[in-house]
Amino acid sequence: MRDTTTLTIPALLARVEAIFRTAGMSTIQAGALARVITAGERDNCKSHGVYRVEGVLRTVKAGKVNPLAEPVLLPGEGTAIVRVDAQGGFANPAFELGVPALAARAKALGLAALVINDCTHFSALWPEVEALTDQGLAAMVMCPSYATVAPTGGTQPLLGTNPFAFGWPRRDAPPYVFDFATSVAARGEIELHRRAGKPLPEGWALDAAGQPTTDPEAALAGAMLPFGGHKGSAIGTMIELLAAIMIGDKTSPEVLDYLGSTSLAPFHGELILAFDPARFAEGRAGNPLDRAETLFEAIVGQGARLPSQRRFAARAMAQAQGITLSAAEVAQLDHLLAQGLGAVT
Amino acid sequence: MRDTTTLTIPALLARVEAIFRTAGMSTIQAGALARVITAGERDNCKSHGVYRVEGVLRTVKAGKVNPLAEPVLLPGEGTAIVRVDAQGGFANPAFELGVPALAARAKALGLAALVINDCTHFSALWPEVEALTDQGLAAMVMCPSYATVAPTGGTQPLLGTNPFAFGWPRRDAPPYVFDFATSVAARGEIELHRRAGKPLPEGWALDAAGQPTTDPEAALAGAMLPFGGHKGSAIGTMIELLAAIMIGDKTSPEVLDYLGSTSLAPFHGELILAFDPARFAEGRAGNPLDRAETLFEAIVGQGARLPSQRRFAARAMAQAQGITLSAAEVAQLDHLLAQGLGAVT
Repeated sequence: MRDTTTLTIPALLARVEAIFRTAGMSTIQAGALARVITAGERDNCKSHGVYRVEGVLRTVKAGKVNPLAEPVLLPGEGTAIVRVDAQGGFANPAFELGVPALAARAKALGLAALVINDCTHFSALWPEVEALTDQGLAAMVMCPSYATVAPTGGTQPLLGTNPFAFGWPRRDAPPYVFDFATSVAARGEIELHRRAGKPLPEGWALDAAGQPTTDPEAALAGAMLPFGGHKGSAIGTMIELLAAIMIGDKTSPEVLDYLGSTSLAPFHGELILAFDPARFAEGRAGNPLDRAETLFEAIVGQGARLPSQRRFAARAMAQAQGITLSAAEVAQLDHLLAQGLGAVT
Repeated sequence: MRDTTTLTIPALLARVEAIFRTAGMSTIQAGALARVITAGERDNCKSHGVYRVEGVLRTVKAGKVNPLAEPVLLPGEGTAIVRVDAQGGFANPAFELGVPALAARAKALGLAALVINDCTHFSALWPEVEALTDQGLAAMVMCPSYATVAPTGGTQPLLGTNPFAFGWPRRDAPPYVFDFATSVAARGEIELHRRAGKPLPEGWALDAAGQPTTDPEAALAGAMLPFGGHKGSAIGTMIELLAAIMIGDKTSPEVLDYLGSTSLAPFHGELILAFDPARFAEGRAGNPLDRAETLFEAIVGQGARLPSQRRFAARAMAQAQGITLSAAEVAQLDHLLAQGLGAVT
């Protein structure tokens, strides 16, 4: 028996999609989810790869997401706001539905927003950022999460880990993309310390009494802290205001109230801003894409890294050589497929 | 002789404006600058108060700003981008000229941007944020600076201290506003450590060889570091991309090349985004301004502070009791006025 199996990217995509389809998800829901999970695995971003398949199925089973939802586009003609009502389905098919309208609006007006409402969110934000940089647009994406982070100076979970992502298009290279939690660490990193029996670094978390702790167990019962002190706390708060309250969707505390658990994918909204550099630079000297390369060269030239480079290297390798899964991962996918086949027959 | 002098807000405004007028600045340049400096002093934000008057005059004298510039509005009809060419004057009158068009565009489209080009920038961003929250809009403002900050993992100054500011309107309270440098500390704080002969905290700066240092002298000859490690570095880079390169204006390294010094106010552009919460929340349950109050109560209720509260408390006191200046500050203002009168007679 081999320890690993190597699949082409389309083969893994088909396999994940089949699992979702047999579990009763519609084509648009299953397809969009399979695309982001395959992209995560392709980029060796394991925390958003095939291990997520089970979480999707668990959220479907819990009745917290509509596996047959048909997202509805509300084009907002005459405004800079394109809206998609996800109808209680996953964010990803809603995003895919909204992207052409968002890109067209951004190119027409220079700047436009895509609001996604009533969606279950579970993927990274970089696939969405990259869908826009692929069209020559810059993008800023944010969403809330569950209340697990205390504001700086506070003692209790209130903010989410509220991811913030940004992308800038490049002609002859993968885009400039960052995508990070506005907490100092992701919840999964605290969980990994707990399993390994290792103390947390200072400054990551508070215990349930609101006191600083390095005990992962106490941290999971308490609150995480924002990155960068009061500045990160302010950015996390801004995300609650813009990507939850402003768009008429759930804040991180409301998400936790609604789900009663952090073990299911969160249900809330999402805000995506798209900028057309060509329109913003109109009438000014210099091509913005060329000038950005000068900046990137200066960053790399002094030994600093551009974000996402590890991901892009993994992607290039997967495109050339396929995606290699462990025997346990393959067995898990086989198991989930069989389970789904059982459910529908 | 009294040690202090107390002036009403309008009296201080008139005094600062008179200094700028006698120094040869036009009414629009002098008025807009006097308004932001008086606002800084009113809010006890001394680093942007009357001590800045001399810096404005120095920048004018160095020929790096046009004291008679008449900013030109390029309304960008049919787009979401309002542009003001500052014509080599200060950013503040350009902002004042653009605000009505920006607010109208944001209310019409839901989202709009104001681009300011070719301006000398020297004030905090919060006065601009508050001009928009005053109109019921949320605002995000950013601009580059001089190259004084090394990207995380790098060794040399490249990014600016690149301020990032945000505001959300409140009906019965001053707005939610933050405005901070994306460096871990402002350059002025390093200078204060140098004067006091105190070492810097770890993690603030690198020396000229790119090694970590706590020596303020070595830090001033080297590079500052971004706040929040690689996340703050990424945000600082985003600001170079959006608020310099995308809008066709100078990046932080280009600003430093152009001025050859960090002792003059920087010359670059600025990006202001305005969001209309009423338009973004359209068709959704709940009023966004009311829902935001619930979030603010939860933050304050657990003992955390909202940003800018110290400023708003100082403002309330200044509005009730006037602004108190030291004898040295009054003498300096008198001196600068006399100098200006000498120059024009």
